[in-house]
Amino acid sequence: MNGAHAVLRTLVANGVDTCFTNPGTSEMHFVAALDDVPAMRPVLALFEGVATGGADGYGRMAGRPAATLLHLGPGLGNGLANLHNARRARTPIVNIVGDHATYHQPLDAPLASDIVGVARNVSRWVREATGPETVGADTAAAIAEARRGGVATLILPADASWLEGADVGTCPPAPVVANATADEIDLVRKALRSGEPAALLLGGGALCEPGLLAASRIAAATGARLLCETFPARLERGAGMPAVERLAYLAEFAAAQMENLRHLVLVDAKDPVSFFAYPNLPSRLAPDGCQLHTLVPEGAAAPDALAALADALGATRELPARARAERPDRPAGELTARTLAQAVGALLPEGAIVSDEAQTGGLFVSGATAGAPRHDWLTLTGGAIGQGMPVATGAAVACPDRKVLSLEADGSAMYTLQSLWTQARESLDVTTIIFDNRAYAILNLELSRVGARTDGNAADQFDLSRPPLDFVALARGMGVEAARAETAEELCSALERALAQRGPFLIDAIIPSGF
Amino acid sequence: MNGAHAVLRTLVANGVDTCFTNPGTSEMHFVAALDDVPAMRPVLALFEGVATGGADGYGRMAGRPAATLLHLGPGLGNGLANLHNARRARTPIVNIVGDHATYHQPLDAPLASDIVGVARNVSRWVREATGPETVGADTAAAIAEARRGGVATLILPADASWLEGADVGTCPPAPVVANATADEIDLVRKALRSGEPAALLLGGGALCEPGLLAASRIAAATGARLLCETFPARLERGAGMPAVERLAYLAEFAAAQMENLRHLVLVDAKDPVSFFAYPNLPSRLAPDGCQLHTLVPEGAAAPDALAALADALGATRELPARARAERPDRPAGELTARTLAQAVGALLPEGAIVSDEAQTGGLFVSGATAGAPRHDWLTLTGGAIGQGMPVATGAAVACPDRKVLSLEADGSAMYTLQSLWTQARESLDVTTIIFDNRAYAILNLELSRVGARTDGNAADQFDLSRPPLDFVALARGMGVEAARAETAEELCSALERALAQRGPFLIDAIIPSGF
Repeated sequence: MNGAHAVLRTLVANGVDTCFTNPGTSEMHFVAALDDVPAMRPVLALFEGVATGGADGYGRMAGRPAATLLHLGPGLGNGLANLHNARRARTPIVNIVGDHATYHQPLDAPLASDIVGVARNVSRWVREATGPETVGADTAAAIAEARRGGVATLILPADASWLEGADVGTCPPAPVVANATADEIDLVRKALRSGEPAALLLGGGALCEPGLLAASRIAAATGARLLCETFPARLERGAGMPAVERLAYLAEFAAAQMENLRHLVLVDAKDPVSFFAYPNLPSRLAPDGCQLHTLVPEGAAAPDALAALADALGATRELPARARAERPDRPAGELTARTLAQAVGALLPEGAIVSDEAQTGGLFVSGATAGAPRHDWLTLTGGAIGQGMPVATGAAVACPDRKVLSLEADGSAMYTLQSLWTQARESLDVTTIIFDNRAYAILNLELSRVGARTDGNAADQFDLSRPPLDFVALARGMGVEAARAETAEELCSALERALAQRGPFLIDAIIPSGF
Repeated sequence: MNGAHAVLRTLVANGVDTCFTNPGTSEMHFVAALDDVPAMRPVLALFEGVATGGADGYGRMAGRPAATLLHLGPGLGNGLANLHNARRARTPIVNIVGDHATYHQPLDAPLASDIVGVARNVSRWVREATGPETVGADTAAAIAEARRGGVATLILPADASWLEGADVGTCPPAPVVANATADEIDLVRKALRSGEPAALLLGGGALCEPGLLAASRIAAATGARLLCETFPARLERGAGMPAVERLAYLAEFAAAQMENLRHLVLVDAKDPVSFFAYPNLPSRLAPDGCQLHTLVPEGAAAPDALAALADALGATRELPARARAERPDRPAGELTARTLAQAVGALLPEGAIVSDEAQTGGLFVSGATAGAPRHDWLTLTGGAIGQGMPVATGAAVACPDRKVLSLEADGSAMYTLQSLWTQARESLDVTTIIFDNRAYAILNLELSRVGARTDGNAADQFDLSRPPLDFVALARGMGVEAARAETAEELCSALERALAQRGPFLIDAIIPSGF
């Protein structure tokens, strides 16, 4: 068999049966091989950022890697921002980047560039295949590395695809993740029993139901607070789940949340730092004098460690701190960030997957949905905007029986709006709400902090009203049904309509007052 | 003054007075400083690929660099594909990438990444500023490097912008480009006088009027053919200009164009290689036994060398080979790639700038415009699609008094469609024609070469008809007036309307038959 067939057969033999694609000529033999490997589902994107963000959303929900198929260095570049987000989410992705044939590379053809150098930016592992003999094994190695959590990039020269003499690779078993030791648990136990103010900072794998239940037992037994990293990859939440308090995005607010802490226990999370640095503000967010304890490092088996810690603390198995089932009333009147959030809280369906890139306009959505029926919340892990709509797309591919709600800021939407076309092509059940405040509102906020004028060239950089974007037209242009909402009633009505049907739908929610 | 002011003042003091931007928080002090340096024109883009491609189009037409303003590693990633094209075009660009404050970088905040590693992929020069004391000099160095032809990347940490103590930098004088030596000219003269079949391959700076006039004298004196690289950065052409034959994109056709050559003289061009490798086809395009001669290397003073060579050959100053003024008739009937090309040829206005990313659907446009009034032709230098609309945007910023015609394939358009919003916001005089064949037609062609089925998963990867893109809706969604054309008459009528007014306009030209 040729190399392309070996790559595809190795992928599907190891459960990687979905590939988010934007191929070109150097990937042609891979594409041709799709006809012979029907177990692989190719999901075409019109832009690589949709493909890489799609693989991120898929991996977060499926818990196993999707593949991508990108076209040389420029294709990788177009996909880089969402691979950056996937790296921060530690999402398993087998990132396949086609390259020129090995003997063509030294000739510096127009599309030649240093793919390895760019791939290193986002990848835990990078390998360039050298020929058909080893490409099956290379693919198996990429799958194994992706399963450790993160982006494994396999660069695939065209001749490694088209030459015969390849074999299906064998994937090593998934690595066993080490548990926290008894000593590690005991150190944390003592800190939490010190009587001093303490909190757990939960991240990554701690934010699933078993992790949150164990953390909630610990909180009940010790009085420790439960904090959650600012941008979790996937947070299970809603009525019946233990509530956690997400660290705020703005440094001052996050620091205030931790103001009096003497102990901060990191559970699959990092020592928290501010998203950006500001003149005369500290970058680290935990207060001076707060001791850090690492229960488990990032990527380790957080739920097991939390359960062991809860047991060591003699914590009861009862859970006093589950979120109550409660929804806001359906809002009426003016459409604002607040009434928009109420509408989402009032109508969010059971089992929804929420992809949240609503930014400033979405300030109140998390609070308004805390008691809504159980759902998953996916966020902007790496801060590279243009992630929300692709992640929603990939999550819908992974979970075809669940409704996906894509909460999207107008400015952020315009980076990867091509997601809508893939949603239409694949009939994905995604409802998108554009939080349309016609500004890079979060940057207006930052600009006011540096004391700039509100009417000059600077402020004009964050004004998206000239001309206004018409997201209804944009959605229809890509084959997605859409409606505009200018009042809370219109929003509720459009959202009910969208949620009652299957397939993609977009609501352009106009919130001119910003907040 | 603070670092941001020093950067801006250094730029404008050296003629870099246009900046294509998509900033974020780490660039906030740069943005704020725009209020105090009104000589800098910021041009906001909704996506970084529009900003970098805009700077490319600007630089190609203005002959001097624009700046960009990008947001950390992910912003650079989003702009990378068009910086790749700019690198291949050797367009001068001062590429400014904001970064975290220097002391914040080691903390690995969510947006942190290896910017230098990615920037190297596309940059002739990369420097990370270390603080306000040197940032003015760093900016001056970036300008000097960009002027040598290519992308100079200055990474600008937030504190290098916000701290006081900076000064305006002094730019060294532009480098003197070495001329070809008498010996070099004599070697080429002898080859052209050998009586054996010979051609000049003209690229880069040779493709301006003085270079082409001198080359035409040489052709007239020696019988040498005039070839032009496949994807020139800027080709001056039309009635009254010497005609050159562009090397074909497909390897077989390009090789056929050079079949019997014994001498190929490279004039600011590279030894031609096929765009992609194919099984059992050679990568180098010049035939075996064809001698290569380099009159001047890439980036050297090609027009001077050509003039010196013409004089050394005793070539007459008369030019027998100017393109005659002739246009096709206005087409009627079915809209096809051929009638679409005829319409462009019939109506192209004097002094137009054509940004050509029409791909397969544009096959006949070059021929149909050969005798149209004088115009410039800008092409896909690096092969990274999504370049045409941004380049058109930047060219319109550089040349506000000239009509820009953006010829764009439907698939390629969808990478950087956000260009339309910038065109609307800046009232740029760009007419876009979408060559809407509802397919990645060039990839269908490549797929047929590898023998794949036409009805399987493979072929489906290149089908853009499900759902069809409605470019009229997409354009209106970004505030650009638009019309659909389904017959040759409708196209002519829409094109006349677009050319008669100022400002952006888009025509969705449906050519369902592909060719």
